[in-house]
Amino acid sequence: MLDRIGTKWTSMAVKVLAGAAPDEVRFAELRRRMPGISQKMLSVTLQSLVRDGLVARRVEPTVPPGVHYRLTDLGRSLEGPLAALRNWAETYIAEIERNNRLAEGPGAGDR
Amino acid sequence: MLDRIGTKWTSMAVKVLAGAAPDEVRFAELRRRMPGISQKMLSVTLQSLVRDGLVARRVEPTVPPGVHYRLTDLGRSLEGPLAALRNWAETYIAEIERNNRLAEGPGAGDR
Repeated sequence: MLDRIGTKWTSMAVKVLAGAAPDEVRFAELRRRMPGISQKMLSVTLQSLVRDGLVARRVEPTVPPGVHYRLTDLGRSLEGPLAALRNWAETYIAEIERNNRLAEGPGAGDR
Repeated sequence: MLDRIGTKWTSMAVKVLAGAAPDEVRFAELRRRMPGISQKMLSVTLQSLVRDGLVARRVEPTVPPGVHYRLTDLGRSLEGPLAALRNWAETYIAEIERNNRLAEGPGAGDR
């Protein structure tokens, strides 16, 4: 399960939804706030979160239908642990990227 | 990066190494403490952690060579956030699995 919960897009979706909670967020607005995500990937990410019971989906019977998402209580309980990991990653990303470049060794760029 | 750090095997390797810190753990012992992981997958997981600078690798010049791993300071700083996520997952895994079964809908088992 960690493999699903700990991914970049899941983490970002939970973050955006947690920031809006208890309000809902529309699909298009979610996508706007998750730069780089495709419509398909956002759709798959949200489907998985809904199946897990972390996110609730509400379809508004308008034309066209409005689709709204919000974190459930279970989803809100995930935001703390996920934020801790996200903050760790943001703090150390530069150091880790540097380590990766160094691991390529001297002259790696010439090969 | 979250996609790499947040995976099951990375999380489990960091947990085992954190439990042994500041001592080192041999490859074979790590594998024994990570039930279900293949030799290849453990090798790939450790290589990635070493490249990131989260784990240090030491080869003992014996016959056959002993290969030892330990968390670096950077690796140890990850254990807290990762443990929080791991504990969350352990607490709610049953509820999430139940949600997934319910999402399949009535009669899903018959199809």
